[in-house]
Amino acid sequence: MVSQPLRIVVIGGSAAGPKAAAKARRMDEHASITLVQKAPDLSMASCGYPYYIGGVFDDRNLLICTPAGIVRDPGFFDKAKRIEAHVLTEALSIDRDAKTVTCKHLPSGEIRVLPYDKLVIATGATPLLPPVPGIELDGITTLHTLGDADALRAVRDQKQVRKAVVVGGGLIGFEVCEALHLADIHTTVIEKTDAILPFLDPEIAKLVDNQARANGADIITGNGVAAFLGEQGRLTGVKLDNGTELPCQLAVVAVGVRPNVKLAESAGLRIGGQGGIEVNTFMQTSDPDIYAAGDCVECTSLITGHKVRAPYGDIANLQGRVVGQNLIQEGSARFPGVTHTGICKIFDYTVGITGLSAGRARELGLTDIETVTIAGLDIPGYMQGKPMISKMVAERSTGRILGFQCVGPGDVSKRIATVAMAIRGQLTIEDLTNADLPYAPPYSLALDHVIVSAHVLQNKLLGHMRGISVVEVKQRVDSGADCFILDTRNPLEFEEIRLGIGETLIPLGALRGRLDELPQDKDKEIILYCKISLRGYEAAAILQGHGWRNVKVMEGGIMAWPYPREK
Amino acid sequence: MVSQPLRIVVIGGSAAGPKAAAKARRMDEHASITLVQKAPDLSMASCGYPYYIGGVFDDRNLLICTPAGIVRDPGFFDKAKRIEAHVLTEALSIDRDAKTVTCKHLPSGEIRVLPYDKLVIATGATPLLPPVPGIELDGITTLHTLGDADALRAVRDQKQVRKAVVVGGGLIGFEVCEALHLADIHTTVIEKTDAILPFLDPEIAKLVDNQARANGADIITGNGVAAFLGEQGRLTGVKLDNGTELPCQLAVVAVGVRPNVKLAESAGLRIGGQGGIEVNTFMQTSDPDIYAAGDCVECTSLITGHKVRAPYGDIANLQGRVVGQNLIQEGSARFPGVTHTGICKIFDYTVGITGLSAGRARELGLTDIETVTIAGLDIPGYMQGKPMISKMVAERSTGRILGFQCVGPGDVSKRIATVAMAIRGQLTIEDLTNADLPYAPPYSLALDHVIVSAHVLQNKLLGHMRGISVVEVKQRVDSGADCFILDTRNPLEFEEIRLGIGETLIPLGALRGRLDELPQDKDKEIILYCKISLRGYEAAAILQGHGWRNVKVMEGGIMAWPYPREK
Repeated sequence: MVSQPLRIVVIGGSAAGPKAAAKARRMDEHASITLVQKAPDLSMASCGYPYYIGGVFDDRNLLICTPAGIVRDPGFFDKAKRIEAHVLTEALSIDRDAKTVTCKHLPSGEIRVLPYDKLVIATGATPLLPPVPGIELDGITTLHTLGDADALRAVRDQKQVRKAVVVGGGLIGFEVCEALHLADIHTTVIEKTDAILPFLDPEIAKLVDNQARANGADIITGNGVAAFLGEQGRLTGVKLDNGTELPCQLAVVAVGVRPNVKLAESAGLRIGGQGGIEVNTFMQTSDPDIYAAGDCVECTSLITGHKVRAPYGDIANLQGRVVGQNLIQEGSARFPGVTHTGICKIFDYTVGITGLSAGRARELGLTDIETVTIAGLDIPGYMQGKPMISKMVAERSTGRILGFQCVGPGDVSKRIATVAMAIRGQLTIEDLTNADLPYAPPYSLALDHVIVSAHVLQNKLLGHMRGISVVEVKQRVDSGADCFILDTRNPLEFEEIRLGIGETLIPLGALRGRLDELPQDKDKEIILYCKISLRGYEAAAILQGHGWRNVKVMEGGIMAWPYPREK
Repeated sequence: MVSQPLRIVVIGGSAAGPKAAAKARRMDEHASITLVQKAPDLSMASCGYPYYIGGVFDDRNLLICTPAGIVRDPGFFDKAKRIEAHVLTEALSIDRDAKTVTCKHLPSGEIRVLPYDKLVIATGATPLLPPVPGIELDGITTLHTLGDADALRAVRDQKQVRKAVVVGGGLIGFEVCEALHLADIHTTVIEKTDAILPFLDPEIAKLVDNQARANGADIITGNGVAAFLGEQGRLTGVKLDNGTELPCQLAVVAVGVRPNVKLAESAGLRIGGQGGIEVNTFMQTSDPDIYAAGDCVECTSLITGHKVRAPYGDIANLQGRVVGQNLIQEGSARFPGVTHTGICKIFDYTVGITGLSAGRARELGLTDIETVTIAGLDIPGYMQGKPMISKMVAERSTGRILGFQCVGPGDVSKRIATVAMAIRGQLTIEDLTNADLPYAPPYSLALDHVIVSAHVLQNKLLGHMRGISVVEVKQRVDSGADCFILDTRNPLEFEEIRLGIGETLIPLGALRGRLDELPQDKDKEIILYCKISLRGYEAAAILQGHGWRNVKVMEGGIMAWPYPREK
């Protein structure tokens, strides 16, 4: 007797769902694979929406086409993949005993019951909306569906909107901010917490904040939206928690997403502590015949071992592939977890992180950490290198790398990928000090930024250097603390740019001859810096060698200073 | 009693030497540090020479300045680092019993004997010259010293030379080739072996070869230089092994380097099997008071465990830092070894490798390997992504990644760094299949090139896909083998570009309806491909599902095909 083809139903057609379906098809030509998708489109490149809205490209089809130019519609899924895809079709319920999914075709109201042997839930997530008055006004949107992208692109093309607000200062908020800016719309980003980009440590986020402002974006932090204001049902402005009113004709809300778990929950599947569907390492839910993947699930942090949500397109694709393999060969593939890697273009800065910020590590109870902030070029100055500022976090006792944030106009993406892989390999700072990375002047300094970062962090761990953060220096200055601040650059540099925080200028090359100008009290706190604090570090070594006992290097130097400067 | 300052002597002032000296100074303000350098300059950015020669920048000082613009001359070393640097000074001999180095100031002939407690040998390497007639002619040079760079830059500026040859088709050969090309000099690269860039597998090297030719370079392989021809002491041409004569006014020889070990050898230090000074993991020679670093030493391959030479600027700097630490705190730092990472810009291609090519792995007796070649974009097409072609090598039994070659106009450097770090962490293909890398459309596809590479290699390891290389397909075609070749693209693509190797066109989407057009013999070899062989792979899965048993995907598709095409 010939065995019946395996019946697979996939709920969700954006990223994880189609990936699981396509992988299953490649592994089993004869399975019956049905995919139901509530939205009108399939396999949308949703991470590309901001670039379509901003006019980086104009052909909307590029968001839903294969590289060969074929629209990924149900006809394509049928012909190229023999997957029966139903769009505008909502999965209403799952009957786990009968092993069926009940679906409704939204335009016709037609109900259909799909039997399954194996089921995949890839229901994604829904953008959160602040529960404030006026949220229903026309002119308020999120950027979630292709329809949202179409509407925001129309805003660009129609040139009617002059002022917009973006509610939420995270990655998507800033991608939208830049897109609207490219459409010549004056945009204000409103972030309820004290700093934008809360996955970064605040002093790093502040550098990005400065840069976005320098590019024309307005940013308001520490102030949420109290109400949306309107006239005749249309948005006219927002009122902030502190009472300020900002006129605007458009508000884009980007304050995070919540996983769509209702269907799973109603079917009695376990939901995890982070609000996502609980899955094991095979991406199996609490029902072994039901898999789940993408924005609706929880997964494991490879750094902390805790469950986390990671609603990102790349992770959805990875998980979808694992599900596809397991649908056909149960237990054949695992998704081990994530290392919290993220990246975003914000005007001419790239902003990236992998692993944990120092703040996040401490929140999680990882207090035995050391950090280092450095600044430097991506490639040599003679090759027109561009700067980057980064902060690396490591566990003090083991040296294990826990996180790396990097921002700037330089090639941040490569450095994040490098450290992401180092974290994946559980490498230590010592391992990284001797990394064999690709070096040639068009691509790197002889010692790449991540290697230098490891060098300086190792210097700190070994006690060769004591660092002090720009935050602490600012606090010292603001509180009038009794410390001696030394700028070790040369006079020309000092004329061009300087902090003006009471510093004394003694160029590194002159320092040994001018030690008498330093505090005679060898226990007095001395803070040194230069442009990036390499000369500051060399100067600190000199002072320590001459008996000063409380010498600190301001990490990252002037490049990492996010506060106003005298010059 | 106050202890005497430690006396450190460093022989060599290019990369490893100054790094060791500077690190030692930062760790001990009171050590006496003397550096002797045979050349007139110190700490030259020698990897930048080709870009100075090619006119990428014009200010020669950038090669010998600090980022703050100060020339790194003996005065700078004295003032900023309190290092006594003697240039134009050659170390003649080491007396290990007396612990002295005898030096000669070359302009004056003055002899000086420097006592040391700890000695560093960083004598670098010397370019090899082919032992052929005419090698002494004017107009033949290497690119090794700053003087060489000055001379080649003068060639650019004087606009007299019209034709040049570069002897040696390795990284430096091609950097020089491009520099001369930028100076409007017609340049021919002559490589004795059968393919350029011998660290790559030949079919990958061939893609670069094609591209360099398309940019106007001439390349001759499998043919060495038999003689340099001249008139009145000046070069007028080269004669090749096969008798061909090429007229030229300039020849740059770049056929590798040999480590400068004479001084160490005369002092009775152990020389290793690869011809470099033998050092342990602390960079200590066979005399524990003498360290060595840079191009003159051997180090360990972290992949094979064998001793290798790695004469690269980044490695020299890493080793120099380790030496500097150990000079002051013996045994405090280790240099574990290298992963054979290298990169080079060749016209609009980047060419990179980390780890071993398949050919090199087999030469080393690693025969239990699997490889995969893929082609793809660095970022999405709608963001103007650029292509890359890569080949990944893994150990079959363990899945451990052994190597990764990547070439193309796309962002190769990031992918090499990513895999270099994966190799450093001894990650497996399975680890890489779920790597959490930075994804946003300006930086990556949702599934980055290295992840896709791991996916396809995993598919091969699990038997889900059988691959065939372009090399094997070309052999099949040339030998008239009885196989069925299927192009799975659409007719428009076929009209634009096609191989013309007897292929049949059946678009993927039509394949299931046209299975009757395929060979009825289910054991007949069927070879499939498309532009990058993703559709080829999907088509292969369909055929396997319908009983064909000898179905192979041509890896990398048309993008990886380095041979002439019909269109």
